[in-house]
Amino acid sequence: ARSYKITLLPGDGIGPEIMKVAKEVLKMVGQQEGMELAFEEALVGGAAIDEYGNPLPDSSLALCRNSDAVLLAAIGGYKWDNNTAHLRPERGLLGLRAGLGAFANLRPATVLPQLVDASTLKREVVEGVDIMVVRELTGGIYFGQPKGFGVNEAGERTGFNTMIYSVQEIDRIARVAFEMARKRRGRLCSVDKSNVLETSQLWRERVTEIGKEYPDVELSHMYVDNAAMQLIRAPKQFDTIVTGNIFGDILSDEASMLTGSIGMLPSASVGESGPGLFEPVHGSAPDIAGQDKANPLAQVLSAAMMLRYGLNEPAAAQRIEATVFNVLDKGYRTGDIMSAGKTLVGCAQMGDILLHSL
Amino acid sequence: ARSYKITLLPGDGIGPEIMKVAKEVLKMVGQQEGMELAFEEALVGGAAIDEYGNPLPDSSLALCRNSDAVLLAAIGGYKWDNNTAHLRPERGLLGLRAGLGAFANLRPATVLPQLVDASTLKREVVEGVDIMVVRELTGGIYFGQPKGFGVNEAGERTGFNTMIYSVQEIDRIARVAFEMARKRRGRLCSVDKSNVLETSQLWRERVTEIGKEYPDVELSHMYVDNAAMQLIRAPKQFDTIVTGNIFGDILSDEASMLTGSIGMLPSASVGESGPGLFEPVHGSAPDIAGQDKANPLAQVLSAAMMLRYGLNEPAAAQRIEATVFNVLDKGYRTGDIMSAGKTLVGCAQMGDILLHSL
Ligand SMILES: CC(C)[C@H](C(=O)O)[C@@H](O)C(=O)O
Ligand SMILES: CC(C)[C@H](C(=O)O)[C@@H](O)C(=O)O
Repeated sequence: ARSYKITLLPGDGIGPEIMKVAKEVLKMVGQQEGMELAFEEALVGGAAIDEYGNPLPDSSLALCRNSDAVLLAAIGGYKWDNNTAHLRPERGLLGLRAGLGAFANLRPATVLPQLVDASTLKREVVEGVDIMVVRELTGGIYFGQPKGFGVNEAGERTGFNTMIYSVQEIDRIARVAFEMARKRRGRLCSVDKSNVLETSQLWRERVTEIGKEYPDVELSHMYVDNAAMQLIRAPKQFDTIVTGNIFGDILSDEASMLTGSIGMLPSASVGESGPGLFEPVHGSAPDIAGQDKANPLAQVLSAAMMLRYGLNEPAAAQRIEATVFNVLDKGYRTGDIMSAGKTLVGCAQMGDILLHSL
Repeated sequence: ARSYKITLLPGDGIGPEIMKVAKEVLKMVGQQEGMELAFEEALVGGAAIDEYGNPLPDSSLALCRNSDAVLLAAIGGYKWDNNTAHLRPERGLLGLRAGLGAFANLRPATVLPQLVDASTLKREVVEGVDIMVVRELTGGIYFGQPKGFGVNEAGERTGFNTMIYSVQEIDRIARVAFEMARKRRGRLCSVDKSNVLETSQLWRERVTEIGKEYPDVELSHMYVDNAAMQLIRAPKQFDTIVTGNIFGDILSDEASMLTGSIGMLPSASVGESGPGLFEPVHGSAPDIAGQDKANPLAQVLSAAMMLRYGLNEPAAAQRIEATVFNVLDKGYRTGDIMSAGKTLVGCAQMGDILLHSL
């Protein structure tokens, strides 16, 4: 049997509840598809700060590195919001991405037919929207040096960061995006701010160059401000989007919200080798933690992405996805996606229903 | 009589057509309100590249500096899209902002009752939306040094830019924003990425500090990715937003698009002293230039913003705004905001109707 070591990082807030559901689903799918799945757990984020005074303990990173894939729930919470920078849960996440070399963040924004009305946009504008944002995740202004605090010529304190991309960093994310576009509807829109930023000029140059290797993919370029508008004006124009770290942070979240059901959206962060990191788009929702109200479906769909992009088990991935859609078709809804005439269920109950439907 | 020198910069594309309308409106309002308005014109953007090989000739900047306010239409077009960086129309705009010290960009996003249905968002989500984005305009990553192209340790070419803000730059834009919020509904949301960027950490620290001078204004903070989501999820939660240059570029455009009628939106860019720069949010629309199809209302409303924020003539500003709303109430629409049952008019005709309604 194909056997895989999976590190589970339940994290903070609703993390443990939704992870529990995803783990059970994975176990059952493992049996059904003849995979041997070995799970180990580690602490990251706020939970790790509380236990080890470090949002990403070496032992957690080592465990992740030694596994075939990493499934993360969510990190952060009010409790740690006022901590100094290096003692914040987010640092654990950034360290994890960098430590795993997970430079390609895949962020699908899919409007599910069952949930079209959850969108704040008109039905005819969002029906059928299916966008994949490919965000560069380990470079750009998130990691660029120098950064910090200084004093300028006028003697004023300053804060500064460096946005920087190298040819190699752009080329490899561009290739991931072109490959993705090729498997989808064959259109790639590269988003930058090349009318102002030198970083973006190199970005556009290289994406154009790599595009020559993919003559079957239709490449276009758009400025980031215009992209922020076009996502609202006519989101169906987009297939695959590729962009840098900070623009991707903003645009992938904007695209997610078009669906109106962020509790449904998974994400994948993958590198050239080594395990990928899979996590829901939503946060740790500390306000509803421990109340059995969380929607576990984004976590479950993240497990499906893990199977597809991390373990190359597309059949198992598909089985999970089909089950989720089936459960939605049957009318089961957690509070965040509830609407009139549907059946409201809690997190654990949604898990049971998934298991019975698998 | 109060007399003002106004520099008109018609720019490119539809610029001259819509500027003509705004100038006529200003002339009439000048008479009605007892102002003496002296107009001069200069070239910027593509038109200036064609004529002088420079998107912002010294003579144009000098004229602007010597005036009481600058009214710009729009710049840019396909024709100059492949020019090298310093010969691009946008450089003229960036130079103008810097040259006038116009560090505060005021970008209203108002959903007009007559045009609610133009939005791609549901009526109940956008009805009554009235957001003012205060964008820092002469600092941040747009102007930070060092920037350019280099080679990294691995021998790879790089492109880089510096995001940098000083205490003084943050404090002055924060004050503009707090004053604005005070005149509006008393709520200010500062947008940053302080969980990742040092620049944002200083930003948040200073905005919080300046906030102590405005105890009557309710200050909140939001990460830029969340702001991009919240604008779509529940735009009515926002009153005034303050943010840096690149985040403001993205979010102000996103907010504009919520209205669905970007052809209606004006903007102002003002400094501590010296003339302000007033321009519509929309671009130069080269595809419809010279066809008498452009919507001149954003340009006319920019003239109103000029009267209010640039020349301290609120009565004249109000007169223009009331006339625009009145003309909309009567059902006149240019193509971009046309809907069933309304009366389609061209750019010049819309101008005539405004003059008759003033
Ligand atoms: C928590 C934060 C550091 C992170 C990011 O900005 O990358 C988050 O917003 C995300 O998009 O995963
Ligand atoms: C044309 C471009 C340089 C400009 C900017 O990015 O500031 C534009 O997008 C704007 O917002 O006025």
